[in-house]
Amino acid sequence: MNDFEDTSFLEDGGDVGIVAYQDYFCDSPLHFQLGGVLESFNIRYETYGRLNDDKSNAILVCHALTGDHHCAGVYSLNDKKSGWWNNIIGPAKPLDTNKYFVICSNCIGGCRGTTGPVSINPKTGKRYNLTFPAVTMRDMVAAQKRLIDHLGIKRLKMAIGGSMGGMQTLQWAIDYPDMVEKVCALATTSRQNAQAIAFNEVGRSAIMQDPVWQGGNYALERIPSVGLGIARMMAHITYLSDKGMQGKFGRGHRKIDGSEIFKPSFEVESYLHHQGQSFVNRFDANSYLYFTRALDLFDLSLIGGSLEAAFKNVQARFLVVGFTSDWLFPPEQNREIVKALLRDGKNASYAEIKSDLGHDSFLIHSPKLYKLIGYFLNG
Amino acid sequence: MNDFEDTSFLEDGGDVGIVAYQDYFCDSPLHFQLGGVLESFNIRYETYGRLNDDKSNAILVCHALTGDHHCAGVYSLNDKKSGWWNNIIGPAKPLDTNKYFVICSNCIGGCRGTTGPVSINPKTGKRYNLTFPAVTMRDMVAAQKRLIDHLGIKRLKMAIGGSMGGMQTLQWAIDYPDMVEKVCALATTSRQNAQAIAFNEVGRSAIMQDPVWQGGNYALERIPSVGLGIARMMAHITYLSDKGMQGKFGRGHRKIDGSEIFKPSFEVESYLHHQGQSFVNRFDANSYLYFTRALDLFDLSLIGGSLEAAFKNVQARFLVVGFTSDWLFPPEQNREIVKALLRDGKNASYAEIKSDLGHDSFLIHSPKLYKLIGYFLNG
Repeated sequence: MNDFEDTSFLEDGGDVGIVAYQDYFCDSPLHFQLGGVLESFNIRYETYGRLNDDKSNAILVCHALTGDHHCAGVYSLNDKKSGWWNNIIGPAKPLDTNKYFVICSNCIGGCRGTTGPVSINPKTGKRYNLTFPAVTMRDMVAAQKRLIDHLGIKRLKMAIGGSMGGMQTLQWAIDYPDMVEKVCALATTSRQNAQAIAFNEVGRSAIMQDPVWQGGNYALERIPSVGLGIARMMAHITYLSDKGMQGKFGRGHRKIDGSEIFKPSFEVESYLHHQGQSFVNRFDANSYLYFTRALDLFDLSLIGGSLEAAFKNVQARFLVVGFTSDWLFPPEQNREIVKALLRDGKNASYAEIKSDLGHDSFLIHSPKLYKLIGYFLNG
Repeated sequence: MNDFEDTSFLEDGGDVGIVAYQDYFCDSPLHFQLGGVLESFNIRYETYGRLNDDKSNAILVCHALTGDHHCAGVYSLNDKKSGWWNNIIGPAKPLDTNKYFVICSNCIGGCRGTTGPVSINPKTGKRYNLTFPAVTMRDMVAAQKRLIDHLGIKRLKMAIGGSMGGMQTLQWAIDYPDMVEKVCALATTSRQNAQAIAFNEVGRSAIMQDPVWQGGNYALERIPSVGLGIARMMAHITYLSDKGMQGKFGRGHRKIDGSEIFKPSFEVESYLHHQGQSFVNRFDANSYLYFTRALDLFDLSLIGGSLEAAFKNVQARFLVVGFTSDWLFPPEQNREIVKALLRDGKNASYAEIKSDLGHDSFLIHSPKLYKLIGYFLNG
């Protein structure tokens, strides 16, 4: 990384304050890549900052697998939990809401307000569940484009996201090349390796073999919390790193006696159980199936037969950032994206940030990342 | 690694042929480290080669988490599956049965003939299940020692094992220092990191939350196969490596259409399901709980307060081997063992083998490993 000028102001910007989500109901059909159609659908989203007169200052934030549209601010004065990317969005923060209009929408297929498996199918009066069309990254982006069109925005200043969010930003640049000026993709990949697919499959198996799952038709009062919790606990390990976990938890444990040998005793065990439980309370099991499958199926090299072919017509400038301890979408998979872009003669930069925090590094306080994003956006 | 002389003869030795297991019923009580006692217990074991007159040529093979006593040969002419370490045990193989008497026993707490949770408690006439005492590595080794005593062997030429088997070999050297001449520990650790504990806990949670588990009192006709299968599928990923899986499976898949989106379609998915299913057919869910907990609790640094203190009185010569792509018990954890031994002034060597096959590398054909073991044993 270059040694930038002092940008410490970026690190302690203000908060966007109290925010509210909005709904955009789109009543023109959305045809899905692998078949199926929604005649109409809802997109839940939030915006921060003001859209300028020529609508040229919009930044689209794309969320990761278990994220949602609420990426900054709080919902009330009593709300203790800010949006998931509050550290980079706000006045004088890297995504500076004094200058930019930041948009984030819940992905199609999700469970936080945008139409997904848990929504009621107006034709049947019942939840879609597994009758919901298969969702791909292209579908997620196509739904987002409807929202961007609705907001009257012709061209995004930047699309930015990490992990599955990063995949969406790449898909944006490919599918709507004249609508994206800059793409910032973090901790992502152009296609998952077998290992990442394998972890996803174990998670899906845990859900689908939970007897409560019932082919996806569980009662909302009795969800497949065991399977979904197991899936989350396992996946959470893949978002961290060996070194990071060892640093945070080590082998710390309370006294273990022979009679309670299988009770969670190590700190890392209690932490994981907490992660599993809180996830089960906020995320729909079927959405988890759809989104993990979208991850598995994502393979940009299938567009035209190679990554270079996929990027042939992109117009955006790219910044791709890998994190050294990310073993889910490791640095080399991020670098590969930039290499392909450069072979196409595109404007693309790769940066690697040293971090022990694993895949989730992109979500965590990092002045280096803030500087990179700030300079890429404004420079 | 040194460039050894030609030892190609080691690579194509013969097989031990048809073997049979034996049972040693020990009727003196075994007191467990964390409490509890078995008044009597069975140890199932196999031997290959002949014990010499002065009983000085015995090698003890210690098995890993899901291994057993059957490590070489076949049970009949029709038996297509050799023991799990058949590649290194046999005439003119690294553990040369023309010269050595090789012993392998199923660990206490196991499910393959040695007394474990699935065995009948003679006091109640019912299966022990979770009333079985908590098992530690020290207990496993204490039970093995009974067998070695029974066989009239005063001193083992070598104790050898990988992963959990490696832990047992270290424990042998510490608990019975005058009974072990050499220790060969592969792909192991003196204590697991938080990440390895975390994976074990997810596996146990999958089992213990399977409604069929019933607090461990499942019917043998209806075992918690879902939970155990999930645990195995996940654990199996940790036995391989990202690169190894990518090389073997890549993103190969059959055509995926929208209507069967969640059916296993990628090769790696089918492979994992097969691994899960075949494991469920051969392993007891409660034994899996006991053994994974023994792994978590294993921490040699607790003996005397440091690894150096733990090894203070060992007399054996040590060879510890790490594998570059092993991310479960990575090379540095293997190296750490040898460093501590060397700081104690002990005779110890560390070797690192380049391999893309992950933790399971120690089980797989490797002329380099064969040479290392052969020279360490005979040199």
